[in-house]
Amino acid sequence: MKFLAKLARSWSESGSRLCVGLDPLPERFPARFATEQRPILAFNTHIVDLVGDLTCAFKPQAAHHAAHAAERDLEDTIAYIRARHPHAIVILDAKRGDIGSTAALYAREAFDRYDADAVTVNPFIGDDSVFPFLDRPDRGAVVLCRTSNPDADRFQDAMAGEEPVYLSIARRAETTWNQNENVMLVVGATKIDDMARVRAFAPSIPFLVPGVGEQGGSAAEVVRVGRREDGEGLVVSASRSILYAGDDDAIRAAAVGARRELSAP
Amino acid sequence: MKFLAKLARSWSESGSRLCVGLDPLPERFPARFATEQRPILAFNTHIVDLVGDLTCAFKPQAAHHAAHAAERDLEDTIAYIRARHPHAIVILDAKRGDIGSTAALYAREAFDRYDADAVTVNPFIGDDSVFPFLDRPDRGAVVLCRTSNPDADRFQDAMAGEEPVYLSIARRAETTWNQNENVMLVVGATKIDDMARVRAFAPSIPFLVPGVGEQGGSAAEVVRVGRREDGEGLVVSASRSILYAGDDDAIRAAAVGARRELSAP
Repeated sequence: MKFLAKLARSWSESGSRLCVGLDPLPERFPARFATEQRPILAFNTHIVDLVGDLTCAFKPQAAHHAAHAAERDLEDTIAYIRARHPHAIVILDAKRGDIGSTAALYAREAFDRYDADAVTVNPFIGDDSVFPFLDRPDRGAVVLCRTSNPDADRFQDAMAGEEPVYLSIARRAETTWNQNENVMLVVGATKIDDMARVRAFAPSIPFLVPGVGEQGGSAAEVVRVGRREDGEGLVVSASRSILYAGDDDAIRAAAVGARRELSAP
Repeated sequence: MKFLAKLARSWSESGSRLCVGLDPLPERFPARFATEQRPILAFNTHIVDLVGDLTCAFKPQAAHHAAHAAERDLEDTIAYIRARHPHAIVILDAKRGDIGSTAALYAREAFDRYDADAVTVNPFIGDDSVFPFLDRPDRGAVVLCRTSNPDADRFQDAMAGEEPVYLSIARRAETTWNQNENVMLVVGATKIDDMARVRAFAPSIPFLVPGVGEQGGSAAEVVRVGRREDGEGLVVSASRSILYAGDDDAIRAAAVGARRELSAP
């Protein structure tokens, strides 16, 4: 199935724009996970069970596994998502950025080893660092465009010709990178006017949106400004606000609440 | 030992500016490695044995290990370098780029798990993605500044105020990021005039230089233009031109030749 079709299916089957980020932090796990043989895998799969029906996507984060030498837990987490919630898109959040044959090896890591549907990609090095992730119509690249952190402006606002870098990325996604309809853009929720500009430059490209909630972005504003003309086009991620909300009821309630806030038609 | 002192020691003990990149490609290994239990580890350590006395640094490349689920080979390769060539700096080429606590986890991966002296870092997301790698005075960040690939200009030449992004990065390295004297910059050999500009903006910062040889950069020009006033400041990487030069004699000869070409005082 083509990437765009998988994404459309994930929206229609879940009725949700919510993406749950899997950022395992063992020091914040409930105490019972400490006695598990593989605490990270046990925590991840528990979260998947708790909120899988509420989400269109999961976004496992690479550093949270790599720092603990937990690559096998990452592999098995993704296999578990596939088995339990086949509608959900899996986005490996690894922010890869390299060129040519090295980028192709990162694509192999994300798509063959981990079986992710998409991987986040840093475009700083140029086209050479984006195209190697776009060869397979059933897998996608989620390219950093407008990040939600405080110092995001420093280089993303630099002027590439007549337009800032982040809009140049949006234009490039719409006109050049998206030949296989498998490009998404990372557009943070913290600067809603910038999101509107990116949407104008890239009317067809789905967004992965971090920054709602703890970082101050408004879910209602993101839906109003970020969706495409057809009403779709948004995958909005939340991680720690859900994973570490409290007991199982609190985790479920946090995901229900986030899903509802994002559900405007 | 502080990072800068380690680097100075690596130059003085080796008398070399050559850094050998470890980009294992099993399909290009000599046939005898196919029967090894851990072909990637066996190949890497064989290269380390062959050329370790000729190099100031090794640069293991992350994707070449991750695509083969060979993280343990990467760990053991670095431990082997430590044991056999303690003078050599180890730069993990992973081009990490994330923020805050996630970047801190990537630092933990590079410095604690892999015991690398430095890790390559992509600054597109801004200061928030660089500082987390600079907390430890004995470990460093090698920040992308001017890459050697064909499309490097697209965003690196965008104007951040009065200066292009790549020079803004050079200035930031010199004036802000380098408080612990543990920043290096990636400056490709393919645009020698740009390297001269980066050197003017960042007179004290050591460079990691890809792009000599196969990509067309001149070793003599790099040494003339890229070194600091004290004559040091260069770590020049070569990977496939050495690793896959042929039999053991050819590999050794390729490294001897590269070292010699880079040896101008």
